[in-house]
Amino acid sequence: MAGNTFGNLFKVTTFGESHGEALGGIIDGCPPGIELDFEAIQHEMQRRKPGQSSIVTQRKENDEVQFLSGIFEGKTTGTPIGFIIPNTNQKSDDYSHIKDTFRPSHADYVYEKKYGIRDYRGGGRSSARETASRVVAGAIAKQVIPDIKINAFTSSVGEIFIDKPYQDLDFSKIESNAVRCPDEASAQKMEDYIKQIRKEGDTVGGTVTCVIQNVPIGLGEPVFDKLHAELGKAMLSINAVKGFEYGSGFCGAKMKGSEHNDLHNADGTTKSNLSGGIQGGISNGMDIYFRVAFKPVATIMQKQESLNTYGNLVEMQGKGRHDPCVVPRAVPIVEAMAALVIADYFLLAKK
Amino acid sequence: MAGNTFGNLFKVTTFGESHGEALGGIIDGCPPGIELDFEAIQHEMQRRKPGQSSIVTQRKENDEVQFLSGIFEGKTTGTPIGFIIPNTNQKSDDYSHIKDTFRPSHADYVYEKKYGIRDYRGGGRSSARETASRVVAGAIAKQVIPDIKINAFTSSVGEIFIDKPYQDLDFSKIESNAVRCPDEASAQKMEDYIKQIRKEGDTVGGTVTCVIQNVPIGLGEPVFDKLHAELGKAMLSINAVKGFEYGSGFCGAKMKGSEHNDLHNADGTTKSNLSGGIQGGISNGMDIYFRVAFKPVATIMQKQESLNTYGNLVEMQGKGRHDPCVVPRAVPIVEAMAALVIADYFLLAKK
Amino acid sequence: MAGNTFGNLFKVTTFGESHGEALGGIIDGCPPGIELDFEAIQHEMQRRKPGQSSIVTQRKENDEVQFLSGIFEGKTTGTPIGFIIPNTNQKSDDYSHIKDTFRPSHADYVYEKKYGIRDYRGGGRSSARETASRVVAGAIAKQVIPDIKINAFTSSVGEIFIDKPYQDLDFSKIESNAVRCPDEASAQKMEDYIKQIRKEGDTVGGTVTCVIQNVPIGLGEPVFDKLHAELGKAMLSINAVKGFEYGSGFCGAKMKGSEHNDLHNADGTTKSNLSGGIQGGISNGMDIYFRVAFKPVATIMQKQESLNTYGNLVEMQGKGRHDPCVVPRAVPIVEAMAALVIADYFLLAKK
Amino acid sequence: MAGNTFGNLFKVTTFGESHGEALGGIIDGCPPGIELDFEAIQHEMQRRKPGQSSIVTQRKENDEVQFLSGIFEGKTTGTPIGFIIPNTNQKSDDYSHIKDTFRPSHADYVYEKKYGIRDYRGGGRSSARETASRVVAGAIAKQVIPDIKINAFTSSVGEIFIDKPYQDLDFSKIESNAVRCPDEASAQKMEDYIKQIRKEGDTVGGTVTCVIQNVPIGLGEPVFDKLHAELGKAMLSINAVKGFEYGSGFCGAKMKGSEHNDLHNADGTTKSNLSGGIQGGISNGMDIYFRVAFKPVATIMQKQESLNTYGNLVEMQGKGRHDPCVVPRAVPIVEAMAALVIADYFLLAKK
Repeated sequence: MAGNTFGNLFKVTTFGESHGEALGGIIDGCPPGIELDFEAIQHEMQRRKPGQSSIVTQRKENDEVQFLSGIFEGKTTGTPIGFIIPNTNQKSDDYSHIKDTFRPSHADYVYEKKYGIRDYRGGGRSSARETASRVVAGAIAKQVIPDIKINAFTSSVGEIFIDKPYQDLDFSKIESNAVRCPDEASAQKMEDYIKQIRKEGDTVGGTVTCVIQNVPIGLGEPVFDKLHAELGKAMLSINAVKGFEYGSGFCGAKMKGSEHNDLHNADGTTKSNLSGGIQGGISNGMDIYFRVAFKPVATIMQKQESLNTYGNLVEMQGKGRHDPCVVPRAVPIVEAMAALVIADYFLLAKK
Repeated sequence: MAGNTFGNLFKVTTFGESHGEALGGIIDGCPPGIELDFEAIQHEMQRRKPGQSSIVTQRKENDEVQFLSGIFEGKTTGTPIGFIIPNTNQKSDDYSHIKDTFRPSHADYVYEKKYGIRDYRGGGRSSARETASRVVAGAIAKQVIPDIKINAFTSSVGEIFIDKPYQDLDFSKIESNAVRCPDEASAQKMEDYIKQIRKEGDTVGGTVTCVIQNVPIGLGEPVFDKLHAELGKAMLSINAVKGFEYGSGFCGAKMKGSEHNDLHNADGTTKSNLSGGIQGGISNGMDIYFRVAFKPVATIMQKQESLNTYGNLVEMQGKGRHDPCVVPRAVPIVEAMAALVIADYFLLAKK
Repeated sequence: MAGNTFGNLFKVTTFGESHGEALGGIIDGCPPGIELDFEAIQHEMQRRKPGQSSIVTQRKENDEVQFLSGIFEGKTTGTPIGFIIPNTNQKSDDYSHIKDTFRPSHADYVYEKKYGIRDYRGGGRSSARETASRVVAGAIAKQVIPDIKINAFTSSVGEIFIDKPYQDLDFSKIESNAVRCPDEASAQKMEDYIKQIRKEGDTVGGTVTCVIQNVPIGLGEPVFDKLHAELGKAMLSINAVKGFEYGSGFCGAKMKGSEHNDLHNADGTTKSNLSGGIQGGISNGMDIYFRVAFKPVATIMQKQESLNTYGNLVEMQGKGRHDPCVVPRAVPIVEAMAALVIADYFLLAKK
Repeated sequence: MAGNTFGNLFKVTTFGESHGEALGGIIDGCPPGIELDFEAIQHEMQRRKPGQSSIVTQRKENDEVQFLSGIFEGKTTGTPIGFIIPNTNQKSDDYSHIKDTFRPSHADYVYEKKYGIRDYRGGGRSSARETASRVVAGAIAKQVIPDIKINAFTSSVGEIFIDKPYQDLDFSKIESNAVRCPDEASAQKMEDYIKQIRKEGDTVGGTVTCVIQNVPIGLGEPVFDKLHAELGKAMLSINAVKGFEYGSGFCGAKMKGSEHNDLHNADGTTKSNLSGGIQGGISNGMDIYFRVAFKPVATIMQKQESLNTYGNLVEMQGKGRHDPCVVPRAVPIVEAMAALVIADYFLLAKK
């Protein structure tokens, strides 16, 4: 157990720092004989990439995945899939100013204390750049479970939120705007707000909602590895995530049992779905849906007092480009992690 | 991977159905030489036990733990600790009415579909009775990390919630009332409300807040096994849990970076603690705090339409005693799971 | 990772000391719906039990297994199977003489150094009594793979060995003599030799050969979890084992490739089977066979110089009954461990 | 569990086919702050490389390791170390003749049956080329445990073996000859024999002995993860290995307890060391030594009947260069796997 592996039968191990030679990973346990859609994989990488629109960071990352093994004549062979994403754009000098400083609410301080050493360039391993490897793995996981549809979208930015149940949304519109919000009115407000926040040199948080459809009954491994427990862990492992709820979530904690119970139909489906598609930790065939809370990015373009490695408080200001709202770019990462969990539990259920 | 093991170096595996011979478990990896406080263990069992007060289920469970190994002359030996909790009070006939019926929002239906067979008596393995084993293991985990203080309490029942920051609460009052709420005014309201709910034959949800103090810097294993990700999984694995948030949580998703960042003091502590004691997945020495949402218990004493195993919808009503609000009894379970995570990551950090 | 769990999908965790309250374990991942043959399980326990014949230790162990969970109306339910084997015959005073002494070639010294504490009674956790739990789990594993036949037998005792290929042996004769050797002439010699060794107050080693028939093609998980690597680990984890070889084994190291290669028949079987049924770590459908070396039991009824806990060398002599040759009783343990590996890899291959 | 990860706290995952883009791996759990000796790593790669002398295969592999992460300013950072070894010399056409043929005693047939697809070029994942990644990881593992000395050497080739206890050998001579045998007289005979075997177009097996010195007391995790059980698995996972024995090994199975017991000295060391430095699965501070049996390489330059994918038996002959005896090149691989086990258990013992 050393922290950089996720999954059991569909198992992903990743490596890579923000400004090292490359990021990458190994997918072990991918079933053989899958004809990989490489464009789909690269498409997911594009979605995660910075600089896609005016409301996200303009940092350039040329995220080209190179597959090194486990694929023969376009098909998976059942052997481990090694891949790398070279860091083509790392400039170490950009980060020399943080060599001796612990940025507030970053991982600088705890890495220094835990490991006694840290690659300070761009946050090193704690940088969200690490999620590029997750997106590669998730894109392959999606191809292991082609019948299952995973749709994530921005459901709130700051105080602006979609005021509709997900059933009223058209998921095909998620990619039609820069914030990845399928509700066009909300999307416009979110976009305007993020632009304003960027001008202030500030950042803002938000939430991503994810809906997983067409999940077979029976995924989940009680009592500790319940399906939603693993989904929760997967989401909470993403940078900047502060909360996870599924089905009725925190609202459910205010309800009565007589309101909350999902009565069955004769075919085994349920009339309501406050359970969020999971009962007793096992999928029941209804839509799985959950919501993930992202805090505002810690790097702001305003002056902040910071602690340096010599124990002094110094004034510091973020340099270069910043990401006013990470939520739109988090959408494909949420999908990737959901795909990893579902693919893994799908294989476990076949055992 | 088969779902009934939790932890890495401090590893717990459990077994047992609600109405089988016994529940129990094995703790593997407990450090040697710990002089166990057996009264403290039994005390935790008492806290979890049904029938402690007028507001919880009156079902009787005589939860006496028997330790079978791994302890010699009162001390742990480093070998696995096997324990059992006999089910002394199981009456199978109580449950014959659900043999052929899937209770709404219970795990009956999914167990039947996943395994093709289920021990229907009292919910079998999906019963919350399973958490008794967790409490035993957690009580021992607490003794592995005696300097770390874990305090959980009921922070809301239905719409009633404590309207104060946890810093203003006196944790020594948690056990002074039946709802385990350290704010006496809120406690009284909650208790009254639960009594009313019970009369209605209904149930209600709520939240448990947990504060962990005196945690050393450096616990957590990025990037997938971040401390809060594992805490989240631990909590989500508890029956009836629908959500988890730590630090600023879902509120943090509404904030700006300039408000949310925790500035350092010169000694490495932070002026605010919206991070919830964890940055980059690693404890930073500040208080860890999180909140867990519990849905209302599915068993209600009202008539509900239910699906039977023959595909017919039938009217059904809960029999016997029911638990109007599971939250007070969930408090020691939340603490137990927190202790398991912290003890495990404490050992991992020493590696 | 704490040492007391074996397997992945069919996963066994055990506990228990020689003279504690009970031994036991948890089987997690047993497929649901198996109608267990409890007599077959108890039969395996009888085979392992001391005191079965005049050539093994006369110590009495009343090995009755009690199943506590995971079984409903005689069938496995897919939930964890907890079981215990009470230690009904432990007499602590028997072992007071070794409280302060490290017996030569026992684990007393290393347990004391590693853990700083040890349950000295009868060797505690390091006692071969621990294997009782393995036999229970193995007996259930056999029922998961009913079509696969696992036959182990004593192939040598001291210098006496069966001088025939296993194909010339009648496995139905294994249980017809006290040494569990299917070659009657060898069996008689072995038995006589063991009786003589017992009179001398000495012990002797030997080997167990195991043949696994009717294994499907495709079991094994390269590159690290090759089928024979896991079988080897399983065998080496048994008390007193010093070596493992499969197929041509150490003899194969003397051969030429032109002699050693197994040529195919048109149906995919091979004309010879020096590979031992496994190629590249994956079963090829031919018989799997391997050999396990057991050293002589360390407890002898002769005087030996021993180190005590105060750093002095003292004369010491084994007391009570001793086991002149552990090999016959090791036969069911070898089978049990083989069954655990094969059942686990069988489930893995279905994933 | 998918077969390509080894270790627990010092955990290695590898990928790569013989003729893919690259081999490589990820080391997760390497302690931070180690100033890596890159020359030592490359030196180990050189030792494993084909074409080092006239008695091994003349195939060219330019084994240059590229480190991609986990190292900053020459030191390990505690984050995962990703590395690749590009396959610069792969020529697919060399292997077209085996596209439709299952070579005898290779893994071709079982890979085809297990996965339904295989990268036939050079054996794909089942090629011994895979061990290059192990050697990289092992070379780093050695630097985690600098005080522990791991010495492997060729102890036999065919019927020729070193006729001395290892204590009489000078390990500094291991690298002084092409067979890596520290006994010069035996080395010469082995070399001559291998040259003759090569002329015959044949191959021959042999054994590697490994001696590990200066191991602290207390490494090993009973009951299933005994130190020698994990060492055995590690060795058996190497291509072509057929057997493993430690300490007295198979000879010990012929001995009496009165001969085999290792009596203590007053300082806790033992007068003899038939236990091989491990008792009860835990290191006792004495030298650990074991022996590994390698079968002859399956690829020979003689005509052999082979099965093709259409179910016909065809005549086939190995092409190009072959490796008459893999044993000398296996020496650094044995050391690498031993280092992985010892480093992992060293970290586990600190927990």
